[in-house]
Amino acid sequence: MPSAPETLEGWYALHDLRKVDWEAWKRLSPGQRDDAVKEAVAFFTSCQKVEDSPEGSSAIYSVLGHKGDLLILHFRPTLRDLRDLELAFDKTRLAGVTRQTTSFVSVVELSRHGEGARGGETASPETQAYLQRRLKPRIPDTSHICFYPMNKKREGEDNWFMLPPERRAELMAAHGATGRKYAGLVTQVITGAMGLDDWEWGVTLFADDPLQFKKLVYEMRFDEVSARYAVFGPFYVGLRLQPEDLPEYLGV
Amino acid sequence: MPSAPETLEGWYALHDLRKVDWEAWKRLSPGQRDDAVKEAVAFFTSCQKVEDSPEGSSAIYSVLGHKGDLLILHFRPTLRDLRDLELAFDKTRLAGVTRQTTSFVSVVELSRHGEGARGGETASPETQAYLQRRLKPRIPDTSHICFYPMNKKREGEDNWFMLPPERRAELMAAHGATGRKYAGLVTQVITGAMGLDDWEWGVTLFADDPLQFKKLVYEMRFDEVSARYAVFGPFYVGLRLQPEDLPEYLGV
Amino acid sequence: MPSAPETLEGWYALHDLRKVDWEAWKRLSPGQRDDAVKEAVAFFTSCQKVEDSPEGSSAIYSVLGHKGDLLILHFRPTLRDLRDLELAFDKTRLAGVTRQTTSFVSVVELSRHGEGARGGETASPETQAYLQRRLKPRIPDTSHICFYPMNKKREGEDNWFMLPPERRAELMAAHGATGRKYAGLVTQVITGAMGLDDWEWGVTLFADDPLQFKKLVYEMRFDEVSARYAVFGPFYVGLRLQPEDLPEYLGV
Amino acid sequence: MPSAPETLEGWYALHDLRKVDWEAWKRLSPGQRDDAVKEAVAFFTSCQKVEDSPEGSSAIYSVLGHKGDLLILHFRPTLRDLRDLELAFDKTRLAGVTRQTTSFVSVVELSRHGEGARGGETASPETQAYLQRRLKPRIPDTSHICFYPMNKKREGEDNWFMLPPERRAELMAAHGATGRKYAGLVTQVITGAMGLDDWEWGVTLFADDPLQFKKLVYEMRFDEVSARYAVFGPFYVGLRLQPEDLPEYLGV
Amino acid sequence: MPSAPETLEGWYALHDLRKVDWEAWKRLSPGQRDDAVKEAVAFFTSCQKVEDSPEGSSAIYSVLGHKGDLLILHFRPTLRDLRDLELAFDKTRLAGVTRQTTSFVSVVELSRHGEGARGGETASPETQAYLQRRLKPRIPDTSHICFYPMNKKREGEDNWFMLPPERRAELMAAHGATGRKYAGLVTQVITGAMGLDDWEWGVTLFADDPLQFKKLVYEMRFDEVSARYAVFGPFYVGLRLQPEDLPEYLGV
Repeated sequence: MPSAPETLEGWYALHDLRKVDWEAWKRLSPGQRDDAVKEAVAFFTSCQKVEDSPEGSSAIYSVLGHKGDLLILHFRPTLRDLRDLELAFDKTRLAGVTRQTTSFVSVVELSRHGEGARGGETASPETQAYLQRRLKPRIPDTSHICFYPMNKKREGEDNWFMLPPERRAELMAAHGATGRKYAGLVTQVITGAMGLDDWEWGVTLFADDPLQFKKLVYEMRFDEVSARYAVFGPFYVGLRLQPEDLPEYLGV
Repeated sequence: MPSAPETLEGWYALHDLRKVDWEAWKRLSPGQRDDAVKEAVAFFTSCQKVEDSPEGSSAIYSVLGHKGDLLILHFRPTLRDLRDLELAFDKTRLAGVTRQTTSFVSVVELSRHGEGARGGETASPETQAYLQRRLKPRIPDTSHICFYPMNKKREGEDNWFMLPPERRAELMAAHGATGRKYAGLVTQVITGAMGLDDWEWGVTLFADDPLQFKKLVYEMRFDEVSARYAVFGPFYVGLRLQPEDLPEYLGV
Repeated sequence: MPSAPETLEGWYALHDLRKVDWEAWKRLSPGQRDDAVKEAVAFFTSCQKVEDSPEGSSAIYSVLGHKGDLLILHFRPTLRDLRDLELAFDKTRLAGVTRQTTSFVSVVELSRHGEGARGGETASPETQAYLQRRLKPRIPDTSHICFYPMNKKREGEDNWFMLPPERRAELMAAHGATGRKYAGLVTQVITGAMGLDDWEWGVTLFADDPLQFKKLVYEMRFDEVSARYAVFGPFYVGLRLQPEDLPEYLGV
Repeated sequence: MPSAPETLEGWYALHDLRKVDWEAWKRLSPGQRDDAVKEAVAFFTSCQKVEDSPEGSSAIYSVLGHKGDLLILHFRPTLRDLRDLELAFDKTRLAGVTRQTTSFVSVVELSRHGEGARGGETASPETQAYLQRRLKPRIPDTSHICFYPMNKKREGEDNWFMLPPERRAELMAAHGATGRKYAGLVTQVITGAMGLDDWEWGVTLFADDPLQFKKLVYEMRFDEVSARYAVFGPFYVGLRLQPEDLPEYLGV
Repeated sequence: MPSAPETLEGWYALHDLRKVDWEAWKRLSPGQRDDAVKEAVAFFTSCQKVEDSPEGSSAIYSVLGHKGDLLILHFRPTLRDLRDLELAFDKTRLAGVTRQTTSFVSVVELSRHGEGARGGETASPETQAYLQRRLKPRIPDTSHICFYPMNKKREGEDNWFMLPPERRAELMAAHGATGRKYAGLVTQVITGAMGLDDWEWGVTLFADDPLQFKKLVYEMRFDEVSARYAVFGPFYVGLRLQPEDLPEYLGV
C-alpha cells in the first residue's frame, strides 16, 4: 500500500524563457535582422506544425517584465525531442541576441487527487480519449498565458507528504472545486517536475482575459491546500505571439 | 460561502526599473546622445499625455541606490497596453544604455478588507465615482515615490490565509486606521499581483516629504497585521522626473 | 496609544559601494587616469567640504574583500541631496571603471528605546544640542569603518514587533549597556531604513582599532535582543581614505 | 560509541556543468571550430579511456534548460585527478566558449544505513568485490542522467542528525525498499560531499527511460525520510553524448 | 557577569577566491603571459617570505569547481596589511584575468569554549607560547585545504546564543573531543568574523588526505552542537600551489 498517489504521465514540457538584447539586435545590419526574422518565423512555424500531427504542441509568448521577453513552450513525447528543439533554437540567429533567463523541464501529470487520473486500462473508451487529450494537451488558442512552478510544503506541522492519503484527497477535491468555477475562462495544465527540475510541479494557465489568472490564483490562495501547503515560485505572464507576429515584434 | 474576500480590480500597473550604464552613455557621440534624449523626452511625454484622456497614467522617477536609476511607472487598462509600452521603450536609444534590473506586473485592487470595495452595482453614484477614481488612479503630482512588493505570511501559527474572515477584517481595519493618520501626507495605491508576478501585492506610496514613507511604514510595522503576517520585498525610493528634466539628468 | 516607539529623525544617509574594474582602469591612458584621479580628488574634497558647514558629512573608505572596493558615505539633509551626489559621482571618469555593488538609503534615527530620543520641544538647550549632534552626525575621524544592515525578527515566538513596549525598552536598555562599554572605542550611528531600503535599520560603526568591531558585535550577539530578535545582513569593513590618498590608492 | 553511522568511501566525483555561448562559438572561424571539436573529441575520448583501466570513469551529457548545456562527469581515485581534468578541460578551445555554471565535488559513499556498507576486512570475497564495484562505479551506459544534491534537515522537531541511530536505520531501510522497486530501471550512485561541497550528498541516477527518474523521486518523496528530513537542491537532467556525437551537437 | 565567552584574538585572515578567465588569459600574447607569470610568482613568493619573519603567513591553493580557481590565503597582524595585499594583487596582470568570486575577512579566535583560551597573563610561559602559536598560525605544509564559514543557529528552541554558558561549554567540549580524534590528520584554524564579514566564524582545515575533511565534518555533523546549532556556508576545497607551480598551472 504505497502512500504516493498514482499518477499518469503524458507529454514532456519545456518552458524556455529568453531575454532579448535589443542593443545587440540593433547592431546587426538590416539584412542580418531580416534573415534572423525569417529563420525564426520558419523555426516557430515548423514547431507549431506538429500540432497537425500527433507529435506535440508549441507556442511562443511575449512576456512582461524583466524576467524575460519570449516564452517558448513545447510539449513533446520525449525529453530528447525537447532537447533537440532547445538546441535547434540555440543555434538560430535570433537566439544569438537573447539570453536564456530561466526554463522548466516537466511532464504532464494527472493524479488520483484530481478527477483526471481515473481509469487506465479498465476505463471506458470515452474516458481513455479524455485522458489522452489531457495527457497530450493541445495548447489552447488563448491570447494570454500564466506560468508558475510550485512545491508542496514540508515544514513542521505543515507537511503535505506526511498527510494521510484521504486527507490529501479531501483537500485536493476542495481545490478542484475552486478550479472548476473558472471552467471556460481558464484552461489549466499541470506538469510534474520531480526528478526533472527544481520545483515539484508546474502550473500553466491559458485565458483570453488575464484578470482571470489573478482571480483564480487569489481565490485558490485561501483554499487550505494552498494556504497551508503550497510554496509558490516566480510567476510569468505573457501574450501569445504567432510566428507571423515576429517581424513586427522584432521591428526596430 | 467562499473564504476569499471580494475584490474589485481596475487598471493594470507596470513598475519598470532601469539601471543606466553611464560609460555606454558617454561612449555615444554628442549627436547620438542628443537624439536619444529627444526620443526619450518624446516617448515619456507621449506616455504622460494619456493623463488627459481616460486611458491611463504614467510617470518616471530617479531612484536612489544600486537597484536602479529610472523607475518607469504605467497604469493602463490592459496588460497588452503595458507590454506595448515596455516594448516601445526597449527599442529606444536610451533603453539601449540601460539594464532592466527589476519590474512588477500587477493590477489595482480594492478589497472588502479595506473601506474601498464597498458598493459595486448597488452603490450610489458618488461611491461609484469614488471607486472609479481609486481603481483608475491618476499618479499624484508628488515629488517622491516609494514602492515595495509584499506577501502575507503562511508559516505555522502565522498564516494569514487560514484566518477567519472576521479576524482578517478586524486586523485590516486597524491597519487602515494607521494609514488614515497619513491622509494628506501619503497617497497609497495597492495593486494585486497574484497570478501576475512573484509577490502577492504591491504598495506604491506618493509623498512630497519622503520622511513620511519612513514614518508610515515604521508605524505600520507594529500593527499586528504587519508584525505577524507581512513579508516585505525590496523597497525602492525615488524622485519625480518630468520628461523635460531628462536633458539635465542625462547631461554628461 | 500607538505601540510604535517614538523616533526622531535627522540627516539622510547613503552608503554607496563600488567595485573597481582594475583592468578597465589600466586600459585607460596615463593621461586619462591622471584626469580621472584629479576629478575624483576634487569631487570627494568638495563632498567633504560640507563638513565645515551645517549641511552634511561625507567620507570614503577602502573596503576589504569581494563585496566592494570603495565605500562612499554621505549624510545630507534631504534625499534629493543624496540623489544629486550619487548622480554626480556616476558621471565621473572614476565611476566609469567601477560597478555599484550595493547601497543603503536610510535616515539617522533616535528612538525612545535608546537614551537618545528623550526630549524634543520640552528638552533643555543642552539636550537639544546633544540631540542635534546625534541627528546630524559628523563622521568621526577614525581609521576604520564597519557597516551592516539589520532587521528585527518576526518568526513564531520571536516577534519583536509583537512585544509589549516595556519589554522592548527593557531589552534595548540592556543592549545599550553593552554598547556603552565600548564608549571611546567605537562610535555608533543608527539609521532607520523602513520605507527607504530593504532592511529595517543600518548600523555604522567607527573605530581606530577594528578589533573593537569584532568584540562589540560578538558581545552584543549574546544580548537577548540580538540573540532572539536580530537578523543580520552583510557586514562591510574598510579603512578611511582621504581624497589625497586616491592617487596612491589608484596608482597602477 | 559514536552516533555517526560508519561509511565507506570510494572514488571522488566531479560534476562539472557548462553553458555554451553559441554566439561566441559561431564567431570562431570554421577552421577554429573544427580544431576545437577535434580537441574536445580527443579530450573526452581520452577521459573515457580510463574505463578500460582501474583508474576511473567519465561521461558527458547534454543537459536541458538554462542551467547548463554540457554535464561532464568524472569519477577518479583522487581529488588531484579531478582537479587535473577540470583544469585540462578549462584550457581547451571548447571550454573557451563555455561558462561553468555549477559543479559538485564529492566522494562515493556507502553507509551502514544502506545495505552496502556491510563488511570491510571480515567480509567474504564476493562481498568485497561487490563493495569495490559500488565504491568505484563504472558509469552505466544509459541514455539519460539525473543529478541532484541534497541535505538532511535540521529544523526544530525535524532534525535528522538528532535521531537515534536505530530510527535512522529504520527510515533508511524503508527508503531503500522504495529504491529497490526501480532495480533494473534506475541505477543510483550516492556520493558524500560534507567537507567538500555545499550540500551533504549528491544523488546521480542513470536510466534509459527518464520517466523513471520522475516516478522514483515522486514515490520517494512520500517516504518519511524524504517527507520529513530531506532538503533538495536543484535537479539536472540530460542525455548521454558520446565524444563522437560532439561534431553534430556542436555543428552550426 | 557577561554571558559572552571570553575570547583571544590573533592575526587577521583574508581568504580571497579568484576565478580565472582562461579565454582572456589566452588572448594575451606569450610575452604578456610570461611577464604575468613572473610577476605573480614574485608576488606570491614575497607574500610567503613573511613566514620567515614574525609578520604573517600566506599560501595559494588551486580550488575545484565553479566557485573559484585560486584561493589566496593570508594571515597578518592588521586589517591594513590584508587590504594592502589584496590591493597589490588586484593590480597585477594575473589578477586582471581573474574575477574575485568571494572572500572572507576574519581574525584568529580562541575561545574559552575550547581548550585554547585558557590563560592570558597568568599562564605559564609554555602556555603563553602555545597560545601565540595558535593565535599567529603558520600555514601548515599540507597538500590540501578545506574552508567554510558558519553561524550558530538562532531559531526557536535552537538558539545557541540563549543557552546557559555551562551548556555551551559542555557541547563545545564534546565537539572538541570529536576534533581531537583527527589530531595529526587535520589541522584546524578557527577565525571569528562577527563585525568583519557575513558569517560568524570561519573554519580552515589543512590535511594531506582530503578524505579526512569529509570524515571529520561528517562525524561532527552528528555532534549535538552541529546537529542542532550549526548553520553551514559554502565549502571550498583545494590543493596547495607553490609559487613555482604557477608556470605549469597557468601554461596554455
